Amino acid sequence: MNQTQDTHPLDLATRLTPTAPNRFEGATHPAYGNMVGPFGGIIAATMLNAPLTHAERLGDPLALTVNYAGPIADGGFEIAAMPSRTNRSTQHWTMTLSQNDTVAITGSAVFAKRRETWTATEAGFPEVPAPETIQRTAPGDRNAWTHRYDMRFVLGGMPAPGTAAQALEPREDSLSWVWIRDLPVRPLDFLSLASICDAFFPRVYVRRQQFVPASTVSMTVYFHVDADQLAAHGDQAVLGTARASHFGKGYHDQAVEIWSRDGVMLATSHQVVYYKD
Amino acid sequence: MNQTQDTHPLDLATRLTPTAPNRFEGATHPAYGNMVGPFGGIIAATMLNAPLTHAERLGDPLALTVNYAGPIADGGFEIAAMPSRTNRSTQHWTMTLSQNDTVAITGSAVFAKRRETWTATEAGFPEVPAPETIQRTAPGDRNAWTHRYDMRFVLGGMPAPGTAAQALEPREDSLSWVWIRDLPVRPLDFLSLASICDAFFPRVYVRRQQFVPASTVSMTVYFHVDADQLAAHGDQAVLGTARASHFGKGYHDQAVEIWSRDGVMLATSHQVVYYKD
Repeated sequence: MNQTQDTHPLDLATRLTPTAPNRFEGATHPAYGNMVGPFGGIIAATMLNAPLTHAERLGDPLALTVNYAGPIADGGFEIAAMPSRTNRSTQHWTMTLSQNDTVAITGSAVFAKRRETWTATEAGFPEVPAPETIQRTAPGDRNAWTHRYDMRFVLGGMPAPGTAAQALEPREDSLSWVWIRDLPVRPLDFLSLASICDAFFPRVYVRRQQFVPASTVSMTVYFHVDADQLAAHGDQAVLGTARASHFGKGYHDQAVEIWSRDGVMLATSHQVVYYKD
Repeated sequence: MNQTQDTHPLDLATRLTPTAPNRFEGATHPAYGNMVGPFGGIIAATMLNAPLTHAERLGDPLALTVNYAGPIADGGFEIAAMPSRTNRSTQHWTMTLSQNDTVAITGSAVFAKRRETWTATEAGFPEVPAPETIQRTAPGDRNAWTHRYDMRFVLGGMPAPGTAAQALEPREDSLSWVWIRDLPVRPLDFLSLASICDAFFPRVYVRRQQFVPASTVSMTVYFHVDADQLAAHGDQAVLGTARASHFGKGYHDQAVEIWSRDGVMLATSHQVVYYKD
């Protein structure tokens, strides 16, 4: 059974209160805590929620960019969200998240009124077993947010905790296919979809099969469906694919596709990730 | 022979003059004109040039996002570029381009000091014939900027002007492989690399083999090399690959890879494109 959207941890974690024109207050939520500060995906969703709940909002989210400029301490924060330009069918937003007047996150969003056009999906939906046939990966001990997702890896998971280091072999590629679903189960919307786009291990972990210091520096999401299409998806698991193109000089990219169970492309997302050897 | 970088049209088109702290003036240049207003790639390069030439700049460009919020009229413009946050090895910028106090373009950039780490390229450099063996595609009559590039299509070009509509068949995919080089020849740098990331036909043209109204709404570039690596590249042609994942409800994505001739991945770029039937 679904929790109502008002009391689901994702809704509590992304909740914003308007305080002045173009200004909102929010607070980190322990259910989406990471090792230090909040999970980046919930921050992306919270940044998106400012224009999404703004009184002047036009249309549905089309593009979102979030730059992780500095750490966020557990506690309250302020988001400024300005409609930089409103056109007939598109609207451009600039957002900034601050704590004690220090900028921690910057971002931008494009909203659009979608309409029917010629349509085609060129990327291929991978042949994968159903999520019910795969065991759920155990969440992490030190990452509260991993308890908020049911993740079932088709390929490209990480070794179980306690595996001896000498048993690990680097992989030839960093590709992962994983079924992901909110916990507790929750109907998919733009907030949960944005958050899921960051719910992948940094590709350097998967490729090298070891944990190194790594963190997302900037993430962009393109939404390929409108609100009605998302509502039709319901609360089923989505299939996420993730891979890197290049690792070098301290940074690597990560390309993500998010698919519905019946093969509808919901979002594509890209990020650049800092890593250390 | 190279033109000096001071007099090359790309340098003239992206030139900015500081007018006040965090403020610059620039102007469109007819050499990079599009059918209406300037070519989006030169605008992306100009947006990047504000932090790049800013007195407080730290490191090299790592990520750039440019949102095309409204049209730019031929003539002067102002760019505001703020260092939102400066860390030990990264710096986050927010940029806005305005004409007569109306926002036309918003954007953000991440700069970083790069350092040696474990490195790997996972994407494959395509097997392609050398650019010398391919004929240059004729530039467009109504797009001045296409005269600023030598483009040689390995695959995924557009039909020659004058081809009868009934002779055209939609393609099964939107993939293009194309050698691209600045004209006049110019050593590659972050400005020309950013501009090249937008120098691809909208994928909807290639897939459907017809021209429809289409324009870039938002573009993100990840730079995979630092200034020294770019300098080593010189003025050779780069190989660009472009494809779409999904077309629907008025928008499609476009994923781009830019490779050096000897197989070094220089940049990956993504954009979301508006199109009409």
